[in-house]
Amino acid sequence: MSQVFFDHNSTTALRPEVLEAMLPFMREQHGNATSRHSFGRTARAAVEHAREQVADAVNAHPSQVVFTASGTEANNFAIHGIASNLCHGQILTSAVEHPCVSRPALAMQSRGWQARRVDVDAHCKLDLHHLHNVLATPTNLVSVMLANNETGVIQDLAEIVALSRQYKALVHTDAVQVLGKIAIDFADLNVNAMTISSHKIGGPLGAGALVIDKRVDIQPLLYGGGQEKGLRSGTENVAAIVGFGLACELAVKSLATFSQHTQRLRDLCETGLVQLGATLFGQQEKRIPNTSFFAFENMDGETLVMALDRKGFAVASGSACSSDSTEPSHVLLAMGVDKDLARGAIRVSFGLENTDEQVQQFLKVLENELARLRNLTAVAA
Amino acid sequence: MSQVFFDHNSTTALRPEVLEAMLPFMREQHGNATSRHSFGRTARAAVEHAREQVADAVNAHPSQVVFTASGTEANNFAIHGIASNLCHGQILTSAVEHPCVSRPALAMQSRGWQARRVDVDAHCKLDLHHLHNVLATPTNLVSVMLANNETGVIQDLAEIVALSRQYKALVHTDAVQVLGKIAIDFADLNVNAMTISSHKIGGPLGAGALVIDKRVDIQPLLYGGGQEKGLRSGTENVAAIVGFGLACELAVKSLATFSQHTQRLRDLCETGLVQLGATLFGQQEKRIPNTSFFAFENMDGETLVMALDRKGFAVASGSACSSDSTEPSHVLLAMGVDKDLARGAIRVSFGLENTDEQVQQFLKVLENELARLRNLTAVAA
Repeated sequence: MSQVFFDHNSTTALRPEVLEAMLPFMREQHGNATSRHSFGRTARAAVEHAREQVADAVNAHPSQVVFTASGTEANNFAIHGIASNLCHGQILTSAVEHPCVSRPALAMQSRGWQARRVDVDAHCKLDLHHLHNVLATPTNLVSVMLANNETGVIQDLAEIVALSRQYKALVHTDAVQVLGKIAIDFADLNVNAMTISSHKIGGPLGAGALVIDKRVDIQPLLYGGGQEKGLRSGTENVAAIVGFGLACELAVKSLATFSQHTQRLRDLCETGLVQLGATLFGQQEKRIPNTSFFAFENMDGETLVMALDRKGFAVASGSACSSDSTEPSHVLLAMGVDKDLARGAIRVSFGLENTDEQVQQFLKVLENELARLRNLTAVAA
Repeated sequence: MSQVFFDHNSTTALRPEVLEAMLPFMREQHGNATSRHSFGRTARAAVEHAREQVADAVNAHPSQVVFTASGTEANNFAIHGIASNLCHGQILTSAVEHPCVSRPALAMQSRGWQARRVDVDAHCKLDLHHLHNVLATPTNLVSVMLANNETGVIQDLAEIVALSRQYKALVHTDAVQVLGKIAIDFADLNVNAMTISSHKIGGPLGAGALVIDKRVDIQPLLYGGGQEKGLRSGTENVAAIVGFGLACELAVKSLATFSQHTQRLRDLCETGLVQLGATLFGQQEKRIPNTSFFAFENMDGETLVMALDRKGFAVASGSACSSDSTEPSHVLLAMGVDKDLARGAIRVSFGLENTDEQVQQFLKVLENELARLRNLTAVAA
C-alpha cells in the first residue's frame, strides 16, 4: 500500500529538479565557499545566485538575506539577536507562535527581558486591543507569525506593524508556513525581520533564512569564521542553499497553481468533514490555502492519526513540530477551545501532488475509522 | 585541466557511498522525524541508527550525542550552553582556537563572563604553565582543541583535563580536525563535551554533533520543538544525519589507511618543501597525519594560493574557515611567528584520494611559481 502524504506543513518531499540542482554540489563541485581557490569560488557563486533567488521570491534585496540552517535557527537568531542589541524591555509574541519563537523569547527572561504573550481570539487572530494594551509597557520587539502552522490562519500584519511602530517596537514575523502558499512581499510587509525555510516548499532540510531590514542592528547567534557578513558563521551548506534558492524560484512560479489546487482539495475535504460532524478551527478567517485543522468530539487525535496511518494516510495531530508531548495544541487552547475537543485535533495539509481522489478516499477511510473507534470505545465503556 | 584538491581540512568531497545512503531520504523517504505517521517513524529510526554510528566512532554512548547543523553550531552551543548554566566566571580558550570557539567565548563577556586566552608555545602546544597560572582565577570552562586546523598539532588533552579538573573547571574540546584522522575515545579523553563535524570526513555539510558527558548541565542554543531531548530544537536534517552516521563508520574503518597514506604524502611533500626553502610550522610536534603548514620568506600566501590554483592545485592560505580577512593567521601570531613570514603561510591537507604523483607534480609547480613570482617581484622592485 502506498502512503498518501497529507502533512505538507510538517515537511515536504524534495522536488526532483531541486535535487538535480543540488547533486553537482554533493559530487564533483564540493568546496568551502570561503576558500579562495576555484572549488571555493564555484561554491561562492552558487551561494550568491541562490541568495538572489530567495530574495526575488519575497521581494527583498539579496543583501537582506542571511542564510541559516533552518527556520528554527532563523527564529532564534531573530529573537535573541534583535533583543540583545536593545535595552532590556518587553518581547511580545502571539499566544499561537511556534515554540521556536515563543521559547527563545522566554529564554531571554533569564537575561533581563520580559516575555509576554498577546492573546488571540476564538478564530486564531491576534487580539489587537490586547496588543495595544500590552504595548503600553516599553517593548523592544514584537514577533507575530504571518500564518499559523496548525490552523493556517493569516494575521493582519499591516495592522500589527502599524500599532507596534507607534510604540517604537521592532517587528519580526515567522513566514515559514506562508512561503510558496501565498505571495510574500517583504518590502510591503514592512517588518524588520522575517523567517523563511526551505523544507516546507520542496527544498531540502538544512537551509533557512532570516530576511533583515538593514536598519536593524542584530547580534549573531553563531559566532566564528564570519560568514554571512559576520551575522551567521559556519561553513555554508552549499548544496542545501542551492536547493533552497531553486525551490524558492519554483514555489513562486507555481504559486497560483498551488493555491487553486490545494484550496479545492481543502474545500472538498472540509465539506466532507462537516458532514462527518467535525469541528473546523479558524475556517471563517483568511487562511493559507492548503491547511485544514479539525476535531471530532470524544475522539483522541493521536489514536486517529495512528489509525489513519495504518490505512495509508499521513496526517498530523496538533503541531507535528513539537516533540513527544501529549498536551493538547497550545494554539487551540489559546483560541479557547475546550481541552477535550483540542485533544482530538487533526491537521491535514495538502501539496501539489495530492489529488481529489485521495481526498475522497481519505473521507471514506476516516468515516470507517471513526465508526470503528467509536464502536471500540462503546464496547470498552 | 582537472583540479587537484589539497584542502581537506577545509571541507571534503562527499563519499559516493554516503551520498547513496542519503538519497532515499532526499527522495521517497522524506518525513519529519517528529511526526507520528510512518514517514516520521522511518525518519526517526534513521536518525537513531546514525546516532549509534556516530557514538561508536568516538567511543561514546548514543545518548551522549546531540546532533547540530555544523561544528560551528556545536562549538557555540558548548561555550554558550555550558557557561550559561554556571555562575559568572572565567572562560579559557587556547590562543589558537578556531574563531567558532574563541568568538562565542568573547561574546559571553557582554553577559558577565571573562574570556581569556591561554598562550601556546612556538610549536603550537598549549603552555601548561600559563594554563596553571590563569586557572588561579575561578574558571568555569576551558576549551582547547584536540588538533589545530592550520598546523595540525595535537594538544596533550590529558594534562589539560587533569589540570582543569584540579580547579573544578569543565573542559570542552573541538575535535573537528581529528575525527577520521586519528582515533578518538570520548570516554578516555575525559572531557565534558566534544565537537565533531560531518563535512570534514567525507560526510555532507549540514550535520555536526556535540558529544556531552551527561553530568554536564547545558542550556540550549536553539529553542523550539524540543528535539534532541530539548537540547537542540529544529526539524532533524535526516539525510545529512544519515550521511554523517555512515561517514563516521567509514572514517573509522579507513583510519589506519588514511593515516599511513596521508602521512606518506605529507612526508614526501615536506621533504620537497624543505628543499625549496620553506619554513614548516609545528612539524616537530605530534600532528594529525594529513596536514602541512609552511611559508616562504618574502612570498605572499594569497598570491601563491592564486598562482597554484591557476596551475591546478587547491590549497589554503592560513585558515580557510575565516572570511575575507587579510590579517595573517592568528595561529602563527600566537606561536610567535614573524608577521611577514606568517603572511606567506600555506596549508596543504591531504585526503585518501590524493596520490604521490600529485604531490610530486605539486612540488614542481610550486618551484616554478616561486621562481616566477620572485622574478616578477625583482622586476617590480
